[in-house]
Amino acid sequence: MASSSSLTLSQAILTRSAIPRHGSTQNLLPSSASFAIPSFSGLKSTSSFTVSRRCAAGAAITRLPVRASAAVETLEKTTDTELIEKSVNTIRFLAIDAVEKANSGHPGLPMGCAPMGHLLYDEVMRYNPKNPYWFNRDRFVLSAGHGCMLQYALLHLAGYDAVKEEDLKSFRQWGSKTPGHPENFETPGVEVTTGPLGQGIANAVGLALAEKHLAARYNKPDSEIVDHYTYCILGDGCQMEGISNEACSLAGHWGLGKLIAFYDDNHISIDGDTEIAFTENADTRFEALGWHVIWVKNGNTGYDEIRAAIKEAKSVTDKPTLIKVTTTIGFGSPNKANSYSVHGSALGSKEVEATRQNLGWPYEPFHVPDDVKSHWSRHTAEGAAFEAEWNAKFAEYSKKYPEEAAELKSIITGEFPAGWEKALPTYTPESPADATRNLSQQNLNALAKVLPGLIGGSADLASSNMTLLKNVRRFPKEHSGRT
Amino acid sequence: MASSSSLTLSQAILTRSAIPRHGSTQNLLPSSASFAIPSFSGLKSTSSFTVSRRCAAGAAITRLPVRASAAVETLEKTTDTELIEKSVNTIRFLAIDAVEKANSGHPGLPMGCAPMGHLLYDEVMRYNPKNPYWFNRDRFVLSAGHGCMLQYALLHLAGYDAVKEEDLKSFRQWGSKTPGHPENFETPGVEVTTGPLGQGIANAVGLALAEKHLAARYNKPDSEIVDHYTYCILGDGCQMEGISNEACSLAGHWGLGKLIAFYDDNHISIDGDTEIAFTENADTRFEALGWHVIWVKNGNTGYDEIRAAIKEAKSVTDKPTLIKVTTTIGFGSPNKANSYSVHGSALGSKEVEATRQNLGWPYEPFHVPDDVKSHWSRHTAEGAAFEAEWNAKFAEYSKKYPEEAAELKSIITGEFPAGWEKALPTYTPESPADATRNLSQQNLNALAKVLPGLIGGSADLASSNMTLLKNVRRFPKEHSGRT
Repeated sequence: MASSSSLTLSQAILTRSAIPRHGSTQNLLPSSASFAIPSFSGLKSTSSFTVSRRCAAGAAITRLPVRASAAVETLEKTTDTELIEKSVNTIRFLAIDAVEKANSGHPGLPMGCAPMGHLLYDEVMRYNPKNPYWFNRDRFVLSAGHGCMLQYALLHLAGYDAVKEEDLKSFRQWGSKTPGHPENFETPGVEVTTGPLGQGIANAVGLALAEKHLAARYNKPDSEIVDHYTYCILGDGCQMEGISNEACSLAGHWGLGKLIAFYDDNHISIDGDTEIAFTENADTRFEALGWHVIWVKNGNTGYDEIRAAIKEAKSVTDKPTLIKVTTTIGFGSPNKANSYSVHGSALGSKEVEATRQNLGWPYEPFHVPDDVKSHWSRHTAEGAAFEAEWNAKFAEYSKKYPEEAAELKSIITGEFPAGWEKALPTYTPESPADATRNLSQQNLNALAKVLPGLIGGSADLASSNMTLLKNVRRFPKEHSGRT
Repeated sequence: MASSSSLTLSQAILTRSAIPRHGSTQNLLPSSASFAIPSFSGLKSTSSFTVSRRCAAGAAITRLPVRASAAVETLEKTTDTELIEKSVNTIRFLAIDAVEKANSGHPGLPMGCAPMGHLLYDEVMRYNPKNPYWFNRDRFVLSAGHGCMLQYALLHLAGYDAVKEEDLKSFRQWGSKTPGHPENFETPGVEVTTGPLGQGIANAVGLALAEKHLAARYNKPDSEIVDHYTYCILGDGCQMEGISNEACSLAGHWGLGKLIAFYDDNHISIDGDTEIAFTENADTRFEALGWHVIWVKNGNTGYDEIRAAIKEAKSVTDKPTLIKVTTTIGFGSPNKANSYSVHGSALGSKEVEATRQNLGWPYEPFHVPDDVKSHWSRHTAEGAAFEAEWNAKFAEYSKKYPEEAAELKSIITGEFPAGWEKALPTYTPESPADATRNLSQQNLNALAKVLPGLIGGSADLASSNMTLLKNVRRFPKEHSGRT
């Protein structure tokens, strides 16, 4: 197997060039991590290959299929625009059809955001659809959760088991895996339950903070074992919510460079143009919050523009980035696009038909054209390889840094070390009286010693509500927050 | 009485020149509105006078006391700096002494914000201490409610009955009128219960919106019957809260030109320098929200700078203004100023003594020097005159516009018109089933016809949660929102 092509190694090489700060992963796969990657037909090539840890560095490129590298080339245009258009329209019509069948839901956002959704899941993000919560995946949060058919369509195309065709057809039905707003406990692949506007972006900040914190604690010069991005789509409604400003202020403060948020600036709320209630300059506000801000003026078809924005966002490592994307809500609907009528209601059969005509979509409802299906099919293999690559890297890391590896593993799994409860202080009726917050602080500090994952926040009141952890530093911009 | 000096008329004249948009008030006092204004000794003059509706225009200035006009001259420096300093230090020490006696509370903010507090209550605001909730008063909201000793000290000096010396001495005691955070139902003169950070500024936005709305509905070219400002002091903690961003975004959207907020930018929270958690550029954020922003760099002693900022703020009529005031928390405390230790704890007797030394304050705790007392004493008479002036104006308005006057009165008093409940639709078990939100909308619209004060908000979801009022317009920047 030494001469067979190595997806892992190749990807590592590509990854290093495309994504700064991604560490070396040469020859780290355990021998058990060989995969038979199913063949697929994409635009330009068909290929099959296996993964091996014993391949020689430099010998791996030869049979690397073009499409297999797309996910990590992220920032280069690698696919025919025609197929991208077709994939994007597939997303649009899956959303249209599901909302139409349910006669309930929000088609407008998926129709406008399909391009950025496509690019994220097809070209940019690293994930494993068959193991949705693999640790080092990139995270995606749909803060504008009402537009969840965008996410379900993407999970479906990407090969997540939770969203099969029958799940799309049971959108918004009792007991389905495709509820009217994303629920992380219902639909493996959904990171965060969203719907309450602003909640998603706040969670995204938390995810990005966790990444930065763990990276600062556990990455080594020879192994960036924690290294993933958090992507988020938020809408006008999210922007109006105070929680998003709170969280985004902290994100700017902490310099969360691997947080990239797309602001779907479609200017339409359920009641009409956002001008009726929301005329602030959100760009300037985010700059004030310490974010890098990019404006993509054509979010409907400007694939290159969106790609370039993501590339720029990744080049800014000390600040989170807001990519303001001007989109048309309900893009493609000849009579309802850019109006509140497409925000939160089914298009209606007549307008669905008109939209099919307008976008040249001859297919039956819920149909995924073969070339689109084929194009997306590679993500199953790629995702498995991403995870295997990381598993190998972690195995190596565990050998070199057993203590850190054990700690990180306990944080990832949420498993407490055996006997952790023995660290708790004991009290008897004879113990001297004390304020509950003082006793709380004693317990928190006792637990902090045995639970490496215990961190907390206190809204600048730690010295009043007694939540200060001794020997634990605050999160500054530069480092980890725990010693 | 025709030849006696007219405070009312003089003030109207002065007011017109100092405060744009303040209407004519000549000869509007009812004959019953004569007052005996107590004499007082100020810096430069002593005088007494009465108020009469029968005075001739132009004949009133002669005996107008210098100090009586200060409150409406607002923007000119009219008082010796020495006395201002003394008044400001009185405020500081009332706060220091009350917190010290209670051994609990927040002395830091009052010590830093005493100058702006002094200028607002002594030179700028129009209020009637003996009738705290007279309708057309200027509003003051201490959003940083923990610093409430600032407000109590000001209410005390200004002559509000709720805060006598004994009330200051019972600060934070059970059943007192001076609780640890301001409560509008406990302390007449407090407009809004504050303490939860951000809540005060959000309420201030509401107060300013109400003013703009009522002014747009009821003011006439010959009578600006609704005409008052809303002032607010908010701190770093308020800025961190999402609610303040939400409300301030709306304030910018609505162009609430008569909202003037002071941002006490002292850079200290209970946990230390705000740099640990809050490094956004709040100035730029407020500009992004559509506010006019002014920076006063010396909030500790820069009286002229603060005055000039207020003057500038009043000249901007189409935007709310944020005056960022750089202050020193705990100003005057030689060992604790500019540190978190002065934020939320008593100074301690040793440091109180050191502060007395440092600021040259030879007085006993809770002492108000005679000249300070005398200087402030004019507000009782002035306030009564302000109200009387407005009452006369309203009487005139009622004659000319009886319908509008009756409506406005019902809004001000909160009294519902007789028989309002007859407007409600009736339902029986035979009534057809309908969604509760539809029934709610029927009732809201029925009530809107008979309750002129009924307005509402719906977070851009009115057409979904069915709160649209027919024939009632949204609040745009330009007009009133109700037809």
